[in-house]
Amino acid sequence: MLALLDSTYAGWDARPMIHVSAALLHRQIVAVFTCWGMAADAAAAAADVMVETDLSGVDSHGIGMLPHYQRLFAEGRLDPKAAPVVLRDNPCMVLVDARHGLGHVAALKAMELAIEKARQSGLGLAGVTGSNHYGAAGYYARMAAGHGLLAISLTNAPSPLLVPVFGREAALGTNPIAFAAPTAAAERPVLLDMATTTVAYGKVSIARRAGKRLPEGWALDAEGRPETDAAVAAEARRLAPLGGSREQGGHKGYGLALMVEILCATLTGAQASAQETGHFFLVIDPGFFRSTDAFQGDMAALLARLRGITPVDLAQPVLIPGDPEHAALERRRAAGIPLVPTLVEEVRAVCAQCGAPFLLGDGSA
Amino acid sequence: MLALLDSTYAGWDARPMIHVSAALLHRQIVAVFTCWGMAADAAAAAADVMVETDLSGVDSHGIGMLPHYQRLFAEGRLDPKAAPVVLRDNPCMVLVDARHGLGHVAALKAMELAIEKARQSGLGLAGVTGSNHYGAAGYYARMAAGHGLLAISLTNAPSPLLVPVFGREAALGTNPIAFAAPTAAAERPVLLDMATTTVAYGKVSIARRAGKRLPEGWALDAEGRPETDAAVAAEARRLAPLGGSREQGGHKGYGLALMVEILCATLTGAQASAQETGHFFLVIDPGFFRSTDAFQGDMAALLARLRGITPVDLAQPVLIPGDPEHAALERRRAAGIPLVPTLVEEVRAVCAQCGAPFLLGDGSA
Repeated sequence: MLALLDSTYAGWDARPMIHVSAALLHRQIVAVFTCWGMAADAAAAAADVMVETDLSGVDSHGIGMLPHYQRLFAEGRLDPKAAPVVLRDNPCMVLVDARHGLGHVAALKAMELAIEKARQSGLGLAGVTGSNHYGAAGYYARMAAGHGLLAISLTNAPSPLLVPVFGREAALGTNPIAFAAPTAAAERPVLLDMATTTVAYGKVSIARRAGKRLPEGWALDAEGRPETDAAVAAEARRLAPLGGSREQGGHKGYGLALMVEILCATLTGAQASAQETGHFFLVIDPGFFRSTDAFQGDMAALLARLRGITPVDLAQPVLIPGDPEHAALERRRAAGIPLVPTLVEEVRAVCAQCGAPFLLGDGSA
Repeated sequence: MLALLDSTYAGWDARPMIHVSAALLHRQIVAVFTCWGMAADAAAAAADVMVETDLSGVDSHGIGMLPHYQRLFAEGRLDPKAAPVVLRDNPCMVLVDARHGLGHVAALKAMELAIEKARQSGLGLAGVTGSNHYGAAGYYARMAAGHGLLAISLTNAPSPLLVPVFGREAALGTNPIAFAAPTAAAERPVLLDMATTTVAYGKVSIARRAGKRLPEGWALDAEGRPETDAAVAAEARRLAPLGGSREQGGHKGYGLALMVEILCATLTGAQASAQETGHFFLVIDPGFFRSTDAFQGDMAALLARLRGITPVDLAQPVLIPGDPEHAALERRRAAGIPLVPTLVEEVRAVCAQCGAPFLLGDGSA
């Protein structure tokens, strides 16, 4: 997500960050998932997604989610042993039942099937039902872009946080939209990955810990009025849809979140009442419409036109969605992934709970 | 569009509106298109789209566009005689070349083909290249919903208006996203139809004519800074992406507009340099994943949950996207379509230019 850089967790914790390598983080995640009874290949694949997400700077959706997955597991909502099964299948569509496993596992299978269908038919749609949190939506879209394909990745989220315009109560999740488009440099696709709220809940928590006021348009109080006190907003757990108020286009963010809900949950049969999550993946092979050269040439011209726009501030050029993630990836591959000590302690607790070895050091490194 | 009600043109003109019936408006549009040399069936079909759009309260995209189409015709950018042709075709995808005809004609054909494919294969994607303005994006999505299908309708727009975050210059159109989902009451689908800018340019013009200041987050000045003086903003022709500033999520609106640009223009081969427009239609048959009863039951439960949210103001309940359009449709079917005298005069001029009979009265009715 464009919003999330290395500074995501600034203000969480006054102690210095520790830095871990991608390989170590991967071993730690696999160790936990293995203790939970997850099959070896599923554990490794889910850890791939989470580590790549941390490498990309999307701290909110990588290892940072492990304590949440632990809670889902403890509550019996997450079955780490579940293997996803195909419920419906035709040459361009497939419906996968995650059987309450970790979302990453079913999502990877679904996206692989959608890619295969797009290669055969030009177009592939995979729905996933009965699932859980699948990490960062953008990961799956980027998978397809790596194969020269266009992709959309959507997920609903069962925790109500988004307050529809004119309402007082949260009724939808932060229901993200991710989109990726391949470029000639396959490892640097266009990559949009955005919540349909103005900000993710984590940004409100961060402002609360840092003692900062929120801008208007981020959060609401318990009566549905704009709230700029971060402590009150963090308590109320009510986020404004992208746009903020009605006057600022908040009905559009709400409408997009509803679209995601319908495509992910209503279309696939994921049940809100059972706190199920559903996912939606669409993959398009541009080669069915145009030659790869023509498509890539026009992509390059479009991106060059955007990068060529005169910026307001010469020190801050116009970005292409995905630029911050690509920059974080390069930086963190070299310097390691920064973790706040609070998170390291939470991972230690997760390990203690299931008997997995704790590999991230003592937090003072 | 949720934003556009009968008050869209309030402030344009101090004179009273005239009201015309849908049937009269249809005859007027067909008379003009016929004089331009459009085939009878194409003229009637395009007029259907435009009149339905006016009935739905989306004044900016119905008869209000006729003077613009006249300019495109006069400049040789619009060929009213062009018949769209299929360039590529497989069981779930089709690419249509509009051959620079009116967008509505190619869009109707493309959406019909996408619906047919979705019925056969569960999924249909239609791209349109070499096109012009196609009216309201939502019209085509609603067509599919009327058949019990889910649909997305996107179009790029060759007039640069949207300023990417951090930039000073407009680089993308207002690139709208429309989505429709069927409900048990087929004539009242969920219908989202939104520009990816905070507001359409027309809202800035309206504020200028009314002498009102703009809220921040709508428009920018020639240096890319927020502009609240409507006269300056109308002159600068620079709109903020949905969200407004970077802090308020403007990078998300920009990212969505770029997604629409890639899916409509880069994917289909519509050339920005030649001011071509492209469209993208995706249709999904939910019956491939679930029974109609199960899907409709969950849709009804979701919408009831949203309508049941306690509102901030009891006089303004939470809406479902599409509610304002459905309400306008009922109102205007009974009372007629209100037209500002300025527009009636513009239509008279369009008629005079091509020799079509002017049917809307003398503007004083």
